[in-house]
Parts: sequence; C-alpha cells; structure tokens
Amino acid sequence: MIRRLCVIGVGLIGGSLALALRRAGHCGQIVGAGRHAATLERALALGVIDGYDLDLAQAVAGADMVVLAVPMGAMAEVMAAIRDHLASDAILTDVGSAKGAVVQTARAVFGALPPTLVPGHPVAGTENSGVEAAFPELFQGRRVILTPTEASSPAAIAAVRAMWEAAGAVVEEMDAHTHDQMLAATSHLPHVVAFALMHTLAQMDAQSEVLRYAAGGFRDFTRIASSDPVMWRDICLTNAPALLDTLDRFRADLDELTRAIAAGDGARLETVFREAKRTRDAFRH
Amino acid sequence: MIRRLCVIGVGLIGGSLALALRRAGHCGQIVGAGRHAATLERALALGVIDGYDLDLAQAVAGADMVVLAVPMGAMAEVMAAIRDHLASDAILTDVGSAKGAVVQTARAVFGALPPTLVPGHPVAGTENSGVEAAFPELFQGRRVILTPTEASSPAAIAAVRAMWEAAGAVVEEMDAHTHDQMLAATSHLPHVVAFALMHTLAQMDAQSEVLRYAAGGFRDFTRIASSDPVMWRDICLTNAPALLDTLDRFRADLDELTRAIAAGDGARLETVFREAKRTRDAFRH
Repeated sequence: MIRRLCVIGVGLIGGSLALALRRAGHCGQIVGAGRHAATLERALALGVIDGYDLDLAQAVAGADMVVLAVPMGAMAEVMAAIRDHLASDAILTDVGSAKGAVVQTARAVFGALPPTLVPGHPVAGTENSGVEAAFPELFQGRRVILTPTEASSPAAIAAVRAMWEAAGAVVEEMDAHTHDQMLAATSHLPHVVAFALMHTLAQMDAQSEVLRYAAGGFRDFTRIASSDPVMWRDICLTNAPALLDTLDRFRADLDELTRAIAAGDGARLETVFREAKRTRDAFRH
Repeated sequence: MIRRLCVIGVGLIGGSLALALRRAGHCGQIVGAGRHAATLERALALGVIDGYDLDLAQAVAGADMVVLAVPMGAMAEVMAAIRDHLASDAILTDVGSAKGAVVQTARAVFGALPPTLVPGHPVAGTENSGVEAAFPELFQGRRVILTPTEASSPAAIAAVRAMWEAAGAVVEEMDAHTHDQMLAATSHLPHVVAFALMHTLAQMDAQSEVLRYAAGGFRDFTRIASSDPVMWRDICLTNAPALLDTLDRFRADLDELTRAIAAGDGARLETVFREAKRTRDAFRH
C-alpha cells in the first residue's frame, strides 16, 4: 500500500499505472509531475492524478513511492532534480526500456546506488502515447521486469513488486544486462526494422505512390512505425550495445536471404521461411 | 456472367473467388482442379465447387473462364497441361503475385501470347491458406490489378474485370513491370523482412528464450511471418529483380540507422523515425 505516489511523466505508462493503482485501492494520494502544465491539467481532468506540481522538488516531497515515467533521455535531468528532495525512505523506480543505462545514470547522479532504487520495466504499451491513451487494464497479465541492483534493499524490491502486482502485472526479476539483451531482440530490433522499412517505402512512395497498393498484412506489419519518435530515439541511444548486436544478427540473416533470392536458391529460402513460420506459429501471447 | 468456371488450385484465393461468384450469381457451374483429391473433396464438402477433376485437361474442357490460382512455381506446368484442351474462346486468367513472370511463362508455353489471356492479381489475402480459410468477402473493396498483355483482347479484359467486380473488388489496370515494382515494395519486401526477423529471433530464442518477453506490438509485426513458405519462396524467385531492388533500398536505410545508433546521432534517428511515423499515420486502408 502506497501512501503518496508521485508519478513523474504522466503519459501512457505513468497514467495507466496511476489509474490501475487507484482502481486497486493500492494508493492514497497520487501526485503528478512533468514539464508541461497542459498535460498535467488533462491528467487532472481525466481523474488520473489528484494534483500536480511543475517543480519536481515539491512534487516528490512527502512521497513514499516515486515512479519515473519519463523518456530515457530525460532520466539524468529528473534524477538530478529530485536527488536532494526525496524522503530518506522514499522508494524510487522507473519504467525505462533500457536498464543498464538507468543504473549507470543513477550511479552518476547519486554517487552510489541508493538502496531505495529498484529499476523496472513494464513490457507493455501501444503505439499510442500520452495520458489520453492511458487505461487501467494496460498492465493486466503483462510482464514487468525488475532489475534490482546490488544495492537494492529487499524491502524496496518487495514494495515495487507489490505495486506492479496490484496493477495486474506478472513480475519477474533479472539482471539489467540480461533484460537489455532480451528487449533489444523482441522490441527494439523490431521497432528499428519497422521504422527503417517505413522510411524506405516513404521515399519510394514519394516517387510513385506505391502505398496505394498496400494490402491487409501491411497495416499490421507497420503499426509499430507509428510509435513515438523521441521515445524510440532515446531507447536506441541508451540500449545501443545490445541493439547493435541484434542488428548485426538481423543484417546477416537479411543478407543471406538476399543472396538466396539473387541466386535463385529456392531450397534455402523455403528452409528459412519454414523455420520463421514455425517459431511465429508457436508464439502465443 | 460465366457459364462454366474452372478454378485450378482451390485454396484461400481460388476458393474465396468461387464463393464470391456463386453468391453474386455470376456463374453457373464451378469446377475445381488440382493435385490433391483430399483438398478438392474438402472444397466440394464446403460447397465451394460443384465438382472437380484431377485431370487438368478434363477440368478445363467446356469452361468459358479458367482461373489459375496455383503457386507461382506451378504456373508453367499447369499452363502446359491445359494448353491443348482449352476451348478456343475460353478466357484464361491467374492470381499470381508476380506478373512479369506469368507473361514470360505464358509466352514460353503458348508460343505466342493468347488474346484470351489476361493476367491478374488480387491484392488481398491473409496469413492463412487453404480452402478452409476461404470466405466470400475476401475481395470486398480490395484492389485487383489486371496487367493485360499487348495481345489481350478487349473482350477478354472486360470479362475478367466483370468477374472481379462481381466478387466485390475494385479493378485497376497497369503494365506488368509497374505492378511488380509496386508489389515488391508493399508486399514482397515486408514479407522477406518479417521472415528474416523471425529467423533471427528463432536463433536467439533457441539460445535464451527471448520470445518469452515479446510484447503486444511484436505479435502484429510478425504476423506475416506465418505466411505459406512455399508460396513466398515462389514469389521471391519470380519477382526477384524488383524485390532485390527494394531490398537494396531497405538495406541502405537500415545501415544508415545502424550507423546513427553506433555514432549516438539522436538527431538523425529522430528525423528518420518522424518521417516513417508520418507516412504510416497517413496510411489508411
């Protein structure tokens, strides 16, 4: 049970968490914070938060749980702004998509990793963003991965776990490095590929309106290219090592398929397509 | 109005066309043909066809419209089998995804392009295949592209157009080369990319179960990797020149993004992502 929750960055994720915790009766007061008064006013009007403060130092004062739901690129600045204003027992977590970078930033800002810090990542989202897109069921049955540091206290880990479980999520723990490799493969690589493909087609479409002829499968395939460009810029930059590794693997596969097409090697194409299909068909979520 | 329709290859496309034409009252008898008696028995049981013949020469006898709905790799064999058995005024069309290859095959099999031949391509489909997946609304509001040859007679073009319009489709005409470039960009490239990505992840998953952590967007993005491997092998081989051109463009875009990630060039990433998102958001089908 959280007495006073402070959500910094009341967008899709932060807003949905607030809605889920309120519905679950897991927290008392919910305070929002962020850079834009207009966003926070909308969150207030939508009943997502009970109040807000544009001054981060004021916003975190008295909070026993602080959730950083800002883009990865804003983590350092936000941590620096709240560092000297957190209650000594206030638990701090985040929802960033790259955990190694969050730990590195926290170490730089706080000097040493605080025992109250438990980095986390809800593996959920839609291609929409903003508090208007928030809904309390977003985390229902979804995985949330916590990546406690060597300094994280058991009590802090338990509190963050309890918060996400109250929001309906299935909580797992792993180290930050493993998390970053997993997410690079299943989320970051597909997004970069979708953005690159859509960019290629945008250029071809400008020449000859190819997109008039796109069929059903195309819509699903390219949906994630509607995702927020700033958020994805930050994810690419903060999880670069793991992402570059998966990009290398993907490019090797793509090059092999390209060579098989050029060489008319139908047997190789069929083998790769069958293996891809088998894996996809086995995938159930 | 078709008196006797012969559908060679009663799968998703051939079966759905038969169902749509029957519902529209656009044809009298519907005869199926193909290699597998079991498939044709199912089509008969499902009410998709009125009868069938495993002998292609018998199947096309007396038909005034013959639709080749077989994989691209089977076109030459099927054309050769029916060549000497088509009624002189029987109209011949196909549903293949690569039109240049169909024209080339027809020229080789028939000696000269017949005036009764009107190649076509319904830009519709699902990741499912087989007659069990067929449904009469598949072509409703979808584009069908006809690529008449220089030999195609106006009467044959009109008959094929009328057939697809009866099935609910929006019919367009263009030359085979333009069609092949369009489809390489909007369909063949996305499929190859999805298969390659799924193959990359299958290999990583075998090492460390990364797919356990895949989230919502992943499911949509990879759906087309469930498509039929043999059909896509054939499409890749028969539309290779146009497909290789789009693969080159895509790879250049992917390499540029990879370099930007490696160099920490956030401005470039954001520009590309924004352009991709703008094009995707403008896309409505």
